Amino acid sequence: MSLLEISSYAAGDWVKPGAGARNIASAVTGATIASAGNDDLDVQAMLDHARKVGGPALRKLTFHDRARMLKALATELGKHKDALYDLSFHTGATQSDHMIDIDGGIGTMFVFASKGRREMPDGHVYLDGDVEQLSRTGSFLGQHICTPLQGVAVHINAFNFPVWGMLEKLAPTLLAGVPAIVKPATATCYVTELAVKIMLDSGILPEGALQLVSGGIGDMLDRLDCQDVVSFTGSANTALKLRNTPAIVENSVRFVAEQDSLNASILGPDAAPGTPEFDLFIKEVSREMTAKAGQKCTAVRRIIAPEAQVQAVIEALSARLAKVVIGDPRLETTRMGALVSGSQKRDVLEKAALIGTEAKRVFGDPENFAVEGADAEQGAFVPPMLFHCEDPDTAVHVHDTEAFGPVSTVMGYRDLDHAIALANRGQGSLVASVITHDPAVARAVALGSGAFHGRLYFNNRDSMKESTGHGSPLPHMVHGGPGRAGGGEELGGVRGVKHYMQRTAIQGSPDILSAIGDKWVPGGTEIAAPAHPFTRKYSELSIGETLHTAPRTVTINDIEHFAHFTGDTFYAHMDDAAAKRNPFFPGRVAHGYLLLSFAAGLFVQPDEGPVLANTGLDGLRFMKPVSAGDSIKVRLTVKKKTPRNEEYGEVRWHVTLTNQDDELVAEYELLTMNAF
Amino acid sequence: MSLLEISSYAAGDWVKPGAGARNIASAVTGATIASAGNDDLDVQAMLDHARKVGGPALRKLTFHDRARMLKALATELGKHKDALYDLSFHTGATQSDHMIDIDGGIGTMFVFASKGRREMPDGHVYLDGDVEQLSRTGSFLGQHICTPLQGVAVHINAFNFPVWGMLEKLAPTLLAGVPAIVKPATATCYVTELAVKIMLDSGILPEGALQLVSGGIGDMLDRLDCQDVVSFTGSANTALKLRNTPAIVENSVRFVAEQDSLNASILGPDAAPGTPEFDLFIKEVSREMTAKAGQKCTAVRRIIAPEAQVQAVIEALSARLAKVVIGDPRLETTRMGALVSGSQKRDVLEKAALIGTEAKRVFGDPENFAVEGADAEQGAFVPPMLFHCEDPDTAVHVHDTEAFGPVSTVMGYRDLDHAIALANRGQGSLVASVITHDPAVARAVALGSGAFHGRLYFNNRDSMKESTGHGSPLPHMVHGGPGRAGGGEELGGVRGVKHYMQRTAIQGSPDILSAIGDKWVPGGTEIAAPAHPFTRKYSELSIGETLHTAPRTVTINDIEHFAHFTGDTFYAHMDDAAAKRNPFFPGRVAHGYLLLSFAAGLFVQPDEGPVLANTGLDGLRFMKPVSAGDSIKVRLTVKKKTPRNEEYGEVRWHVTLTNQDDELVAEYELLTMNAF
Repeated sequence: MSLLEISSYAAGDWVKPGAGARNIASAVTGATIASAGNDDLDVQAMLDHARKVGGPALRKLTFHDRARMLKALATELGKHKDALYDLSFHTGATQSDHMIDIDGGIGTMFVFASKGRREMPDGHVYLDGDVEQLSRTGSFLGQHICTPLQGVAVHINAFNFPVWGMLEKLAPTLLAGVPAIVKPATATCYVTELAVKIMLDSGILPEGALQLVSGGIGDMLDRLDCQDVVSFTGSANTALKLRNTPAIVENSVRFVAEQDSLNASILGPDAAPGTPEFDLFIKEVSREMTAKAGQKCTAVRRIIAPEAQVQAVIEALSARLAKVVIGDPRLETTRMGALVSGSQKRDVLEKAALIGTEAKRVFGDPENFAVEGADAEQGAFVPPMLFHCEDPDTAVHVHDTEAFGPVSTVMGYRDLDHAIALANRGQGSLVASVITHDPAVARAVALGSGAFHGRLYFNNRDSMKESTGHGSPLPHMVHGGPGRAGGGEELGGVRGVKHYMQRTAIQGSPDILSAIGDKWVPGGTEIAAPAHPFTRKYSELSIGETLHTAPRTVTINDIEHFAHFTGDTFYAHMDDAAAKRNPFFPGRVAHGYLLLSFAAGLFVQPDEGPVLANTGLDGLRFMKPVSAGDSIKVRLTVKKKTPRNEEYGEVRWHVTLTNQDDELVAEYELLTMNAF
Repeated sequence: MSLLEISSYAAGDWVKPGAGARNIASAVTGATIASAGNDDLDVQAMLDHARKVGGPALRKLTFHDRARMLKALATELGKHKDALYDLSFHTGATQSDHMIDIDGGIGTMFVFASKGRREMPDGHVYLDGDVEQLSRTGSFLGQHICTPLQGVAVHINAFNFPVWGMLEKLAPTLLAGVPAIVKPATATCYVTELAVKIMLDSGILPEGALQLVSGGIGDMLDRLDCQDVVSFTGSANTALKLRNTPAIVENSVRFVAEQDSLNASILGPDAAPGTPEFDLFIKEVSREMTAKAGQKCTAVRRIIAPEAQVQAVIEALSARLAKVVIGDPRLETTRMGALVSGSQKRDVLEKAALIGTEAKRVFGDPENFAVEGADAEQGAFVPPMLFHCEDPDTAVHVHDTEAFGPVSTVMGYRDLDHAIALANRGQGSLVASVITHDPAVARAVALGSGAFHGRLYFNNRDSMKESTGHGSPLPHMVHGGPGRAGGGEELGGVRGVKHYMQRTAIQGSPDILSAIGDKWVPGGTEIAAPAHPFTRKYSELSIGETLHTAPRTVTINDIEHFAHFTGDTFYAHMDDAAAKRNPFFPGRVAHGYLLLSFAAGLFVQPDEGPVLANTGLDGLRFMKPVSAGDSIKVRLTVKKKTPRNEEYGEVRWHVTLTNQDDELVAEYELLTMNAF
């Protein structure tokens, strides 16, 4: 294959490697396959392009527009998976590693596309939480909103997942409405470059929304300000250096880091050999040691087992690891490929040696192992290595040294508190897992160890068929961890989107809040409906449009009748003396569901029209009981509209029931599906 | 008055001033009134005391226990307000300033006490968001939780609000379950010390929950790790220095900063002289300039008005400022007291001079102003000073130099976009206000300027009677801002509590999630109720306790009858042909509320018992229509229990309605109030 020239995409142009370009070697053969980098890259022009062209274009779109864009991008990438797989073998990754990186990245985008449509509005302002009552009569209220940052997101990614690493940051960034400049690690940037090309060539993205730096990033970080974000994944040392960039510290630039992590997996005290949990533990740990040749920020580095089971764990794990075929990742028989580079291999062996000063190597010999279909000397191959630390309480390196390869250490615990203490010795990690069938063990670990971990993964016989794996960050769940893991957080659904938005506390009158949030706020001006709102199409309804119904008197016969018809003969409806003994009722009262049903009777339009169905109801609260002789009337206001497809949209109505004295009887939000 | 010795409270002992103690002068007379500081303070012992004694004691309590503790502390402080007022006059603050600092601080504690009871569980784990579906059949799910950090919160506070500044950080910290070490600014630490004494003497707090550093903090910050938090309020320079502490950067210690801020107030284009908004604007700006002698991080520094109104604004503001009586804060006639110290006065005058290079002083002369009842030379008095900047586009200092006193600059804008651009020139601020009656103006500012501000405050004729003021951070709303304002966030209700907790993504089976969250998760094991659960007291019910009812067939007569009884004759219930034309229905179907009512009839117990009332219903969704001849049955499961007072608790039931084929017809959460 001829030498690949890996370009950057800067301010609308592809820029080929130039002065200062570096060569990139194949992980498998050691041969140079590509070059990348150009010292003349105009980083200021890139920032300007993102801020002045990409940002404004993205901010014009609604969250739903951007979610559709993500779905289209993911679909487009899906069409080119084979080309991405093919290139990716050079990084040392096997086909099953590609599933994590390439399919996993595309899947992450699909999840954000879906969450954007389901959990965010088809508008420009995301409402964070509910209205806050800041005044007695409600003329002055609070609401938190999130709006996109007006700068640029700089993504600095690690070498291990050239596709997922980009897409897991890009999806929430674009959904937020913020342009991105992606800087992959040079060692594997050729895979990222292809993914970027696929996305840009599709024409789905507005110009300026996505740029790429292949090679060095120059002094870009010195030019960031309060509207920018840096999201970093990589080593603690690099994070420390970047975090101290003066412009970043002085301008309070958001800096999200995901760095080293000495992740632990705990075998529960209940999970003795012979239980499904013991077998599951061996399987998960072995997979986490060898997937991606252990080059995963979430890989299991510390195996914490009851002292009585340590020997059984070592034996079972060793037996399983012995079956792992190491070799050319293109071979179907290969279970573990190469590390990404010779320098990574040297680093892993150095770190393993350091761990070896405190723990005994019980499986795997880097001087003596078989490699299938490739040259063990030229490629960056290492075998899985298992260590056993007999005194984890006094040991230091096993808890703070991450050998970023297929290297892990077994240690024994005396009781669950000891296991928790050992897990916490990592001083902050991305994930810890616990294999247990005992919910009490799970709860104890969550309380004792939750504060030290970004994620706690529990698995057992009940969940193992559908569980997603200790090492897999999911777009739904936050990924990141305190302390050594960098103190950052990514993903987690809308939480991850909010990292690229500013949360702002809004205070004002109901009308001001309604206008900002595109959602009617109680106390806001009611718009008189020009006709019964149930006769008006989705597209015709205005936020704030309101119907007031005539009143209906509730009689004792109604209550009696409803009780016998439904079977709900609760004493508060049937027996005046007993009802009076109840602290909440003045005597016999109407059923709540009678009121709800009568309310519907007051506002429903019988004929065919735009309202297709009542799909649900939220936040119903009964505020004041209704006695026989009282009357109720309904106020119905369009609160919020959310399109669901090309034909219908959901209308959320704010409904209040009041009595003859205008006292609030009940309040709820009604959902209907309305034709466009 | 004799010299006050201001002590620290360290590891269980009060420590008097010692080596390295500093004298503190009265703001009003310049005379030395107190001394504070001790170089021999054992900061490691303080950290150990918090981590090993205070933290474990606080974590044993539930969120509700800690909320009750906050309420008791606030009540206790309220009993000693007069003593706090009396001491506080020495800081230069007037009685109305005390209302902000002392009453405002106590009020903040009450709000957190109330939110802790209403919005957090009576348990040890806070659930952040809903269950995430991670698998097809639901055997493996996700849930985010928050648990208290296991370290200590170090609060470094500014001099301007010695009570509020402590309590606004302390309330969320204690509610989270984290011990605090409070380090007030030395200049006003004597007021903080009294407030701490009141709290500690009350015996309400567990030992180790609260410690105090009066004077310097030594090398405490060098000893922090991943479980600690620093919350800083003060100058950008100090923040920068502290933020770069190696232990803080290397251990990813959370560092929340609230620093400088060039807050703006915008007069809406609609708010011409003669409107209620114009008068309101003058009143708010004048108050924000002079309250606490302008020593408020939220004070208005930039007054942004339509070019046509600049002259009117200057005249109206000057007239109002001319009436502000400056003097001894103890005098009832005094409207503005002194700055905190002579050095603050020098700093304010220097910064004002810098602003003066770009803007003309149009009101207030620091060389010539009246001071009532105090010596203008000895006390730290300055007059309100208003500047007018004619060219705010080229000016720099008016947008980046904060004179931390009664100093503000008027500037004109051409159109709303220009006003937004000027507001954003602050490069991140705590708050901007807009006085407008036009919701469209409010929306434009929110979209254009939200990303630059932690809070946007809107006011007009509708809200002015109940509005809380541009400058008042409220416990309900976040306080903090991007960029120059420090990039931090405090308060905001439960959001502020979460700053002292770790968010952890939990993955596992429904039973594991139920145990960790103290809340039944669908798919979890059902506990067979030993009797009908409605006959069992609140205290007897277990999470997961489940009732299955007998089925009931829905007949065409039921539908017909319900329609005419309630008045809900929607065609989908009445007309088979029309219903078939509806995309959601197979033909005539039962009313949703009929199903809900029949369901209640199936599970309600008629006799007097522990269930006192059905108080509401959440998240009702109709999943599948029910036709005549179908039957429905109900499954009712105890999902969550929340005590409300000494006699009752709220039980949240998970309810599903299924048909004769076990298909889900409807799902909701039912709320009942149950006797203990």
